Amino acid sequence: MGKSEIRTVGKVDLEKPASEQVNLHIGNNDSADDVRNVDLTRIHYLTGPFEVEKAEPGDILLVEIMDVQPFQDQPWGFTGVFDKTNGGGFLDEIYPSAAKAIWDFEGIFCTSRHIPHVKFAGLIHPGILGCAPSAEVLDTWNKREAGLIAANKLERQVALPPEPTNVHAGAADGDLRERIGKEGARTVPGRPEHGGNCDIKNLSRGSRVYLPVHVTGAKFSVGDLHFSQGDGEISFCGAIEMAGVITINFKVIKNGVKDLGLKSPIYIPGPVEPHFGAGRHIYFEGFSVDEHGKQHYSCIEYLRRFGYSDYQSYLLMSCAPIQGHVAGIVDIPNACTTLGLPMDIFDFDISPSGSAKALNMGTCAFESGVVEGKITAGGKNSEHSFGGGLTYRSG
Amino acid sequence: MGKSEIRTVGKVDLEKPASEQVNLHIGNNDSADDVRNVDLTRIHYLTGPFEVEKAEPGDILLVEIMDVQPFQDQPWGFTGVFDKTNGGGFLDEIYPSAAKAIWDFEGIFCTSRHIPHVKFAGLIHPGILGCAPSAEVLDTWNKREAGLIAANKLERQVALPPEPTNVHAGAADGDLRERIGKEGARTVPGRPEHGGNCDIKNLSRGSRVYLPVHVTGAKFSVGDLHFSQGDGEISFCGAIEMAGVITINFKVIKNGVKDLGLKSPIYIPGPVEPHFGAGRHIYFEGFSVDEHGKQHYSCIEYLRRFGYSDYQSYLLMSCAPIQGHVAGIVDIPNACTTLGLPMDIFDFDISPSGSAKALNMGTCAFESGVVEGKITAGGKNSEHSFGGGLTYRSG
Amino acid sequence: MGKSEIRTVGKVDLEKPASEQVNLHIGNNDSADDVRNVDLTRIHYLTGPFEVEKAEPGDILLVEIMDVQPFQDQPWGFTGVFDKTNGGGFLDEIYPSAAKAIWDFEGIFCTSRHIPHVKFAGLIHPGILGCAPSAEVLDTWNKREAGLIAANKLERQVALPPEPTNVHAGAADGDLRERIGKEGARTVPGRPEHGGNCDIKNLSRGSRVYLPVHVTGAKFSVGDLHFSQGDGEISFCGAIEMAGVITINFKVIKNGVKDLGLKSPIYIPGPVEPHFGAGRHIYFEGFSVDEHGKQHYSCIEYLRRFGYSDYQSYLLMSCAPIQGHVAGIVDIPNACTTLGLPMDIFDFDISPSGSAKALNMGTCAFESGVVEGKITAGGKNSEHSFGGGLTYRSG
Amino acid sequence: MGKSEIRTVGKVDLEKPASEQVNLHIGNNDSADDVRNVDLTRIHYLTGPFEVEKAEPGDILLVEIMDVQPFQDQPWGFTGVFDKTNGGGFLDEIYPSAAKAIWDFEGIFCTSRHIPHVKFAGLIHPGILGCAPSAEVLDTWNKREAGLIAANKLERQVALPPEPTNVHAGAADGDLRERIGKEGARTVPGRPEHGGNCDIKNLSRGSRVYLPVHVTGAKFSVGDLHFSQGDGEISFCGAIEMAGVITINFKVIKNGVKDLGLKSPIYIPGPVEPHFGAGRHIYFEGFSVDEHGKQHYSCIEYLRRFGYSDYQSYLLMSCAPIQGHVAGIVDIPNACTTLGLPMDIFDFDISPSGSAKALNMGTCAFESGVVEGKITAGGKNSEHSFGGGLTYRSG
Repeated sequence: MGKSEIRTVGKVDLEKPASEQVNLHIGNNDSADDVRNVDLTRIHYLTGPFEVEKAEPGDILLVEIMDVQPFQDQPWGFTGVFDKTNGGGFLDEIYPSAAKAIWDFEGIFCTSRHIPHVKFAGLIHPGILGCAPSAEVLDTWNKREAGLIAANKLERQVALPPEPTNVHAGAADGDLRERIGKEGARTVPGRPEHGGNCDIKNLSRGSRVYLPVHVTGAKFSVGDLHFSQGDGEISFCGAIEMAGVITINFKVIKNGVKDLGLKSPIYIPGPVEPHFGAGRHIYFEGFSVDEHGKQHYSCIEYLRRFGYSDYQSYLLMSCAPIQGHVAGIVDIPNACTTLGLPMDIFDFDISPSGSAKALNMGTCAFESGVVEGKITAGGKNSEHSFGGGLTYRSG
Repeated sequence: MGKSEIRTVGKVDLEKPASEQVNLHIGNNDSADDVRNVDLTRIHYLTGPFEVEKAEPGDILLVEIMDVQPFQDQPWGFTGVFDKTNGGGFLDEIYPSAAKAIWDFEGIFCTSRHIPHVKFAGLIHPGILGCAPSAEVLDTWNKREAGLIAANKLERQVALPPEPTNVHAGAADGDLRERIGKEGARTVPGRPEHGGNCDIKNLSRGSRVYLPVHVTGAKFSVGDLHFSQGDGEISFCGAIEMAGVITINFKVIKNGVKDLGLKSPIYIPGPVEPHFGAGRHIYFEGFSVDEHGKQHYSCIEYLRRFGYSDYQSYLLMSCAPIQGHVAGIVDIPNACTTLGLPMDIFDFDISPSGSAKALNMGTCAFESGVVEGKITAGGKNSEHSFGGGLTYRSG
Repeated sequence: MGKSEIRTVGKVDLEKPASEQVNLHIGNNDSADDVRNVDLTRIHYLTGPFEVEKAEPGDILLVEIMDVQPFQDQPWGFTGVFDKTNGGGFLDEIYPSAAKAIWDFEGIFCTSRHIPHVKFAGLIHPGILGCAPSAEVLDTWNKREAGLIAANKLERQVALPPEPTNVHAGAADGDLRERIGKEGARTVPGRPEHGGNCDIKNLSRGSRVYLPVHVTGAKFSVGDLHFSQGDGEISFCGAIEMAGVITINFKVIKNGVKDLGLKSPIYIPGPVEPHFGAGRHIYFEGFSVDEHGKQHYSCIEYLRRFGYSDYQSYLLMSCAPIQGHVAGIVDIPNACTTLGLPMDIFDFDISPSGSAKALNMGTCAFESGVVEGKITAGGKNSEHSFGGGLTYRSG
Repeated sequence: MGKSEIRTVGKVDLEKPASEQVNLHIGNNDSADDVRNVDLTRIHYLTGPFEVEKAEPGDILLVEIMDVQPFQDQPWGFTGVFDKTNGGGFLDEIYPSAAKAIWDFEGIFCTSRHIPHVKFAGLIHPGILGCAPSAEVLDTWNKREAGLIAANKLERQVALPPEPTNVHAGAADGDLRERIGKEGARTVPGRPEHGGNCDIKNLSRGSRVYLPVHVTGAKFSVGDLHFSQGDGEISFCGAIEMAGVITINFKVIKNGVKDLGLKSPIYIPGPVEPHFGAGRHIYFEGFSVDEHGKQHYSCIEYLRRFGYSDYQSYLLMSCAPIQGHVAGIVDIPNACTTLGLPMDIFDFDISPSGSAKALNMGTCAFESGVVEGKITAGGKNSEHSFGGGLTYRSG
């Protein structure tokens, strides 16, 4: 162990089209048409499932994230806002157009030509990891979510049922493939029984995650690598999505579900999170007058002073290492949450005591026909791709 | 400045009964009957309003919290769970009985005979601070909250309208007093226009808060001092409530509302928050399957291994420096939040890799007739009191 | 415990002259004549010795520092440079004149009229604490230091032998008093056998110190309270010396010297040190070409850009929370040390990328006849006093 | 920028013998004979010099360290103690034998079969970086160090003069090569005029270093990559030496030496240093009674309780992220320094309150004829190699 090169379990062929492999194509370009037109039946492609020796239902799989890195030859990622009519998101009534920012990586840092005067170290992490559900757990999910859909009286989707179109069923075919399409859980939401798409920004290098095992061999999967993300990942496709490699150590804790009293995952963060100092954040107080995101508007309004457009700020709040805290949630009718913006990711002074001269901030990428969030015209698209590899070590 | 003793603006007479002054009586004893019987029309007594020279509507009042300290001769505080029928709280269906933990202060640390084997440094702060609303702002509040009440179809309260009973109207009397009772805003919720009861645990020593000014003189008030609080303050009376003194510096930023683009308060934390190290927290992943607080149960279940009762854990999660983060909130149907429990507040090893021997944890205080959360019998009560003082310095 | 007011063990009468009590008089004024004329045979007055029950030689006394606070009615302290002919110091060839800065305390922060545009939170701590030496240990000290004096060929003092003048012998008189004057150890140096005047800036609130016990009852003493100090305390009287109160918990670890393998003290810092963020320091690289302090000159030269005089910077480097690290000490002939200056203690941008406009920085206090470090004229002095109180709790 | 793979400036051929390239061979094996026999005339091989466009004497070269990584196919490094007769070191009278620990890297962490029960994240950095001296600066160095050698009356070396044997002169030959051998500065010591071998453990990922430029083009060199190092790097070859790649951004600050008042380098650390929490360190107080390293013995003695041999602890103190602080250095005769040992690098509890059961700690590697520091017998050696690569980006 340790003497030879990292053993890579799987690699993504970056020359092939997305439909032929585990890829979703988003271009490193200045149009968000690819985001607008994304086929959401094709996410999230994951690496796995890994059969872990000796893991049995009732055990805990201890997953230690030894490192996460972008591919050396693909040093870039993107943050997107989905079009309201294709994916939408948390604040899609206010930000209805597809938009995009490309981030270039240099070592531990990223910068974007679409959001200038910002540079920060990635709090790099997988957005998704978890063990496969058992048949019983899967059944629980399907009933629970079908119930939500049945009870829904809102005009928006409240859950995503199994989706036969473009089902990613690996080696399965025939009846099995069809059944997977009809019953297999979507990867969009995280779920308490296994974690899954938890999108936790601090689940980064050096973290140890304790995952309940539901089936023999654990059948662990991982993917959706993020170079960085803010708490909430508010623009939906809000992290800096990237192609990269994750290095993992596995350990099985026999009978851990009962011994540790765990029904949902827990984790212990690693020691190398970027640290800015307590006093180097501006915290925006948000109150749930209209909706949960109230405080985001405050922050976006604040950043206007410096020349950022609202879409730029919305993208930035989604992917930069923003602290989103629950403050007081018991005082009816208004809960209070806080949003902490680290000042040191900007290359100028954004503190309230600094001067507030607006800079030339250019623009983020929009879908065709939209300029600065207002519908007008064109765009173009030369395709690159991203995906995920995974390496592991025996514990 | 600085050469003479702190100038105290107001002091609380700790010998007088609560109804004669700005006090609420909770006893340093082993019964929670005082919590059960608390008169909630009498909270929160605040210190103020302070008329700040030169402050005008449209300005920002910069409030620097130079220090917060418990009264030297009252080195204790309490955390409470309200009875479901008198106050209730976030999780009152699960924790319906009144309960209480008394915390003793020694310097920067606190311990409790009701929750043994725990010691931590206070992240001391005011739960409430803000400037008075203008008539227009007050009108907005009353209409907004009356609308909520009118539309309510739930079996629980969704907002608290003005309350003439026990109205605290200072020097006002006659018609004015009556009008205050009918139109004056309750202090329970924080509100976006001025902050108020924001209950932000990190708004501690050294923080600078930027508050919108709505009336001439700002008329700033402060109170509800907490020795410590967890994110969320989940048991409602969940902070360590204490009697103490806060030292404040004021500065007026002319025309700040417009210049800084602020409609709600912002703050910059101070430099002396207790820090435990990223890797010294256990994070519980919570998913909104049933309700927002899901992950709290995970944590409470986890702590059972060590002998803590559920009420003890519920009290502890409310008042210890718990990190409550929004993780991913866009993946329908389940948002993910995380709850970070610092391991170093315990005097034994609570990590998943440690042994899990249950210790003798005694019990927290309950209302009469309740033992360990199950209804049975008595209690007693010898009254002590708490309140709040305030000192200020000219900026 | 915890229910009543702090029990204060001893108080200093601030109305009496120094010679009648445990005080040294330095004035809160704008002359450093008091520093120039200080009688160095009268330092350090300590509080103690405390007899700790059950402590025996070979035990470890665990001292937990629950809090350190300045006296509420004496919210100020001072940093001094001794005159080269009376005390001198580390760099007295370069800074030969007595100088002084007065610091005003407001809550957790301090500022100085003598070093403008600086404000920082105190990393408050005792400069001296330790248990009494046994007769054998005292004998070791006297022989070791007498040996150094005998071998000295430099023109400066290398050790301070026992000093009968103004010996502080408590209740002792007659022969005993005389013997104490001739054999009693001076408090100036820290010593490995008991710690003593260790001047460790991080030995602050919440720290736990493990002290070897040499005599029955431990006979613990403490004093020399500092509101803040930089690593090295380079100007000798370089901390912010203050009058205040320290709250301590004692615990005896039987046979701890052997069981823990301790011959010198160890400590574990508390959780509330001010934290600025790794990237908010400027580190000056220093190499031992001429003398150890080389890098201090770099820092002082750097601060000239902003208008600070060299004496102001020398005082500031002594008392602000400067990080002094040993870097590489094995590469002959030049060891490398680093000096980290936190940028956030200044109210303007001192980073290398900021502008370097010199501000009006006034002057620190000098002894009569000196202006800006150059000898010329007068001064005046109205006396105030400082000292130390101590409270303790049974463990 | 950012769209294509990292452009690597130079690579080390790991198949060639050391004498044919920039390598020094130390084996990943269990003997320290290679360390004992190391040819110290062959260190340090560096990458460079880089000619930076537009850099002129008087400018500052701003070097931003975007990342440092071990070679993916050489995931290991070593820490060594030199034999007293070949290199020696800080404490070679106590640790006279050559010894070695091999460290295996997994992602951000390292572990060693020679020092079990320890795992920590690397604070990865270059030990050496700097710009070339001008002829004048080189002359200053040679005179200064020759003076030291001339004045030396100790039995040990005090400086290393130019060394013609094995001179590494790049493309130079004939007279020039000979002159380089006679006048070229050795790389062993750091020097104030340019930095060089500064061995600063925190000069890690994300750091920005400001280097004085002495010749046209700056002629920047870098090397001696460390996976980790403790403050002091006390065992001389005390860091975890590794083969790896460093990614750098250059920027020239015209006239920076004068404008910034810099004669020696300064740096600002990056944001991703491992952080353990203030209270998760044991600090050993050290006093300069016999020699500077006094406190190291305390720490080594303390670690004996757990089964570590003195050589193991000596190696560990050299390479783990130890905090070495100057505390009080003005109190004659004993300066106080502190050595902070992070508790969380051990997989068992080393706190004073934990149990102190000795574990089976095996042994580090020794030179032939030495067992546990005592001379006896054999060893063997199969050679691997290390070196350094460098990539850069245009700023």
